[in-house]
Amino acid sequence: MWLFSAPPREKIQAAYGYTLDDAWLNHLMKASVRFNSGGSGSFVSADGLVITNNHVGLDALQKMSSPSKNYVHDGFTAATAADEVNCLDLELNVLQSTEDVTARVNAAVPPGAVGDDAAKARRKVIAGIEKESKDATGLRSDVVTLYQGGQYHLYRYKRYTDIRLVFSPGQQAAFFGGDPDNFEYPRYDLDICIFRVYENGQPVHPEHFLKWSETGPREGDLVFVSGHPGRTERLFTVAQLEMLRDVVYPSLERDLKRRDALLTAWSARSDENMRRAKARLFSIRNSRKYYDGLIAGILDPQLLGRKTADETSLKYRLAQRTDGNEALQAFDRIAVTEGAIARIYVREQMLEVASGFASDSFTIARTLLRAGDERPKPNGERLPEFAEQRKDSLELALFSEKPIHTDMEILTLGDSLTELTETLGYNDPTVQNVLAGKSPRQRASELVLGTKVRDVAFRRQLYAGGAAAALAPHDPMIELARTIDDESRAIRKSYEAEREIEHQAQAVIGKARYDILGASTYPDATFTLRLAYGTVKGYEEDGVRVAPLTTIAGLYQRSADHGDKEPFDLPQSWVDRKTDVNMDTPLDFVTDCDIIGGNSGSPTVNTKGEFVGIIFDGNIEVLPGDLAYDGVQARSVSTDSAAILEALRKVYRDAPLADELSSGRR
Amino acid sequence: MWLFSAPPREKIQAAYGYTLDDAWLNHLMKASVRFNSGGSGSFVSADGLVITNNHVGLDALQKMSSPSKNYVHDGFTAATAADEVNCLDLELNVLQSTEDVTARVNAAVPPGAVGDDAAKARRKVIAGIEKESKDATGLRSDVVTLYQGGQYHLYRYKRYTDIRLVFSPGQQAAFFGGDPDNFEYPRYDLDICIFRVYENGQPVHPEHFLKWSETGPREGDLVFVSGHPGRTERLFTVAQLEMLRDVVYPSLERDLKRRDALLTAWSARSDENMRRAKARLFSIRNSRKYYDGLIAGILDPQLLGRKTADETSLKYRLAQRTDGNEALQAFDRIAVTEGAIARIYVREQMLEVASGFASDSFTIARTLLRAGDERPKPNGERLPEFAEQRKDSLELALFSEKPIHTDMEILTLGDSLTELTETLGYNDPTVQNVLAGKSPRQRASELVLGTKVRDVAFRRQLYAGGAAAALAPHDPMIELARTIDDESRAIRKSYEAEREIEHQAQAVIGKARYDILGASTYPDATFTLRLAYGTVKGYEEDGVRVAPLTTIAGLYQRSADHGDKEPFDLPQSWVDRKTDVNMDTPLDFVTDCDIIGGNSGSPTVNTKGEFVGIIFDGNIEVLPGDLAYDGVQARSVSTDSAAILEALRKVYRDAPLADELSSGRR
Repeated sequence: MWLFSAPPREKIQAAYGYTLDDAWLNHLMKASVRFNSGGSGSFVSADGLVITNNHVGLDALQKMSSPSKNYVHDGFTAATAADEVNCLDLELNVLQSTEDVTARVNAAVPPGAVGDDAAKARRKVIAGIEKESKDATGLRSDVVTLYQGGQYHLYRYKRYTDIRLVFSPGQQAAFFGGDPDNFEYPRYDLDICIFRVYENGQPVHPEHFLKWSETGPREGDLVFVSGHPGRTERLFTVAQLEMLRDVVYPSLERDLKRRDALLTAWSARSDENMRRAKARLFSIRNSRKYYDGLIAGILDPQLLGRKTADETSLKYRLAQRTDGNEALQAFDRIAVTEGAIARIYVREQMLEVASGFASDSFTIARTLLRAGDERPKPNGERLPEFAEQRKDSLELALFSEKPIHTDMEILTLGDSLTELTETLGYNDPTVQNVLAGKSPRQRASELVLGTKVRDVAFRRQLYAGGAAAALAPHDPMIELARTIDDESRAIRKSYEAEREIEHQAQAVIGKARYDILGASTYPDATFTLRLAYGTVKGYEEDGVRVAPLTTIAGLYQRSADHGDKEPFDLPQSWVDRKTDVNMDTPLDFVTDCDIIGGNSGSPTVNTKGEFVGIIFDGNIEVLPGDLAYDGVQARSVSTDSAAILEALRKVYRDAPLADELSSGRR
Repeated sequence: MWLFSAPPREKIQAAYGYTLDDAWLNHLMKASVRFNSGGSGSFVSADGLVITNNHVGLDALQKMSSPSKNYVHDGFTAATAADEVNCLDLELNVLQSTEDVTARVNAAVPPGAVGDDAAKARRKVIAGIEKESKDATGLRSDVVTLYQGGQYHLYRYKRYTDIRLVFSPGQQAAFFGGDPDNFEYPRYDLDICIFRVYENGQPVHPEHFLKWSETGPREGDLVFVSGHPGRTERLFTVAQLEMLRDVVYPSLERDLKRRDALLTAWSARSDENMRRAKARLFSIRNSRKYYDGLIAGILDPQLLGRKTADETSLKYRLAQRTDGNEALQAFDRIAVTEGAIARIYVREQMLEVASGFASDSFTIARTLLRAGDERPKPNGERLPEFAEQRKDSLELALFSEKPIHTDMEILTLGDSLTELTETLGYNDPTVQNVLAGKSPRQRASELVLGTKVRDVAFRRQLYAGGAAAALAPHDPMIELARTIDDESRAIRKSYEAEREIEHQAQAVIGKARYDILGASTYPDATFTLRLAYGTVKGYEEDGVRVAPLTTIAGLYQRSADHGDKEPFDLPQSWVDRKTDVNMDTPLDFVTDCDIIGGNSGSPTVNTKGEFVGIIFDGNIEVLPGDLAYDGVQARSVSTDSAAILEALRKVYRDAPLADELSSGRR
């Protein structure tokens, strides 16, 4: 996750004998695209084609779908330029330049300023730099905080908003294997979506776009990934990591497994239950795998061992410096803070995060209650979610007509009240107040059946009427929210106060770390452009060797092994054109390039800068990458450039698009 | 769960104006059958037909199956008497008489004898009574401890061992709805299996058998259930119940949900995974539902409220008696003991019960290790599972050729080592010793791939060689077992010592309770014959009224609602003969009769003593029945006698069998 402004030239030279070249880097940087909806992509033709993942384009596909045309499931091929479909709300950014503005930012913060004063001065100078740059260049200009406050860089982007859909293979091919194969390998997904970027009604002709590789990469090839990893915690202190290990992860994991088991069993009872629970269940299972992966990583003593060694070494160097004391104290401050957070974490989750009240009805009831209390306050004194600037999105969610099913509400609320009881203890006074002399199951039933908050008109009326209106009807769910509100707000306040101490201490350490180590290490991910490198490389799992490349033959085989049943069913086009396809074409491959969420859709390029594949997932061992990179087993998964051409030509019969990718022009 | 020797005449008279009659009771008692494999049944013809549940007969069906004939799945119809199939290992008991021997047992225990001395004296007199009765009557004679030691009754049984299969409907019809419908209602199961009892090569002609009702019961009918409930804890003290609520149930529930989520996800990856995990997963899900039900019950304040009131009242009466002090002290002793058990429970589960090492390989390794240590000891000093009298079953399990799959072993061991770490804490010295510097996942992989205990020849060799042989090969799994063995044995010893104190205190309370309350309440279940009563009655759940009877039409509808997919698929015979069947025939019904595990297969009879149905399950609210009976929502589920005749005649086309049931003779 290296900065393009400080690439790891020596490391690559030492490991592979390959020299990174400035022009090559500049070309790759300007061919890389950020999807502001969350994800990465790249220009792949002189006529403005941009390729990303199907799951990055999903939001756009959903928004353009209607009951008569399901772009998500059916996929799409634009027969002519006129058939390309406009996307809603899609913003693409292409990085043009970066500039170190650390000195200017730091100079604007008065010596000795701490807490709010320092934060205000910093926000002011950053806003000034951004405006000045935007006025001067016309480019989107963002000051990015790197190294947790060790550096501030100004990023300037060319911004595109006229984006049109050219091709999607349909979700069966893009997300073949569904949840069971998610975060696994071997894989057989064609996880792509192709757009064309327009400006002034015409396709753009980008100066930089990636040349397409007809064959994809071979095992052992040196490759690079250029994309926008979203967020990592690699610079967390050991005390922070131990808190995650001992408190946060086990708690989240227990919660997720409990909900997974609950909804899986309930879904099996009827197809209608399955339909109602499907989206929730997918999200729960995705999170469960994610935390399983993080836990596996943090329980690996090598990971924490390296972290401890690095921290010890940094502390040693700080102790030798005259100005090192502040950062050393910040480490101690964080350790104390983690202890304080650990003591209230589960209670805060249960009450304020409302894990103990898992239901849409409770969420709505509490929003109505708090809206009544918060909206009369001055804007700056409200809980942030009730601030004027968030009013639209709050009301959008609060007045949503989305269906709420009482049976599922009783199920999830009853189970989470049981969890609340087991977690905080049966004799806890809050638990006793919440249960009100009933069993969790009975109480959930009484609350869900008794509340009127599922009625949107009722919500509007209470919201309009303020605090008095919210309490007047004696709605049992709103009264439950009131019962716990004082304690819940108090624990949130304590929790946020501890988090603020933690963040300020992190910034002190971040600055000190950068002063000592400079750019010899990369900063934590910030959804800005980064460079990763590695090779196409298999791995070993439980003594079994996993080969780095799969083929189209493997796709057909895996589908057949599962009796072509969902989520291993193939689109009809793949079934019909099976005999046309070259079965040996490589489909997906893994590399040891370091990626994380946000890298989805990143181009994988070879040393010639050619597009050889597109990142779409990692194996389960990638997940601890939030905390540290492991090159032994962690693998990023790409769809092969060769498979994309083969599928376009033989399965989707879109020769013009294949030719445009292959030749680089229409 | 009333004793036939002390039936609740007044209660039934008061509630229903119906008078229990001695001849009626004697007839029902002698028509009731105990399946010693675990379950109940009844004689239903003068020519020795016995009906029970399919799941009670399952073990027999499995034992008679071969690769060429699957009695479990396909079902069976005996065309002629000669076709009836012999069952292996099936013992049926029919209760002939009971006798109160309390005075004789108590008189044999010397005044002042406590602990082992009292236990030995009691065992001796009981053995004497049983032998004397057997010699005198030729009947199987068991002295049963009732009211936790308040009473001792001698039960005499007629014993049958020549049992032959007459009819089974096949598992799809018997267990229609599978795990999703397990413990649920409405239901649509034909959960029956019909045997014929032989003696001296001829069908027996029992003096007592139940007359068959052609129509089944109607809503509101008073009915009785005569069967053998297995085990309840309804006489537990409040302190014991609180320990279950706060420690035991939450721990087991967490464990089960974790394993459910793990194996469900793994099973979805491939059909082969599904096949390997299927039996384990079924058992986990069954237990998960069971504990969910128990937790729902124990978190119902009414249940614990009634228990507390009963206990307070008993203590009050004890305090008024000159001899009440011993029992009052026993309550206190139990409370102290529960505290001690609570402190070690989770650790004992993780280490000695080996929840932290969930894998066949670990179980085998530890058995080999301990066999080496235990077998040289005198028989009386060994851990009970290594005693001479258990040698055969120990060796049968240890040398079993059942397949052990390394992938599933690594999966479950890795996950349970993670659970061990989270539960006991990462820095716990035992956890650190177990992990040996690896992550749980890596350690599991290294252990499973490194051990040779999956090789049965290797096991035999080590077992034969004793302790030295077990340790000589430095097998990593055996060494792991050795690592924790001292601590594990020590914690088991502490745990069992506390349990012994608890049992002795329970016996003191049991005796005192019986002295005060006599047979005005029934004793906890002991897998002996009990009478339950109630009516055919629907119930309300979350504001929805659940009707008491289902019909055959509902079976076809439920199958269609699920696209005839497993476990909602119908046997071909039901599909083929759909038009022949009377759709309005009642299929299953619920009553508020008090049942529990062991009651499976019990006859449900009407006031005329006619067989109107057969108990096969309860709804989810029945599960807290382990702790207390709840008549509001708890319902026992029966297959209707009318559906059995209709299915035999129209679907299975076995008119002779239907006629025999209907007329009571062949």
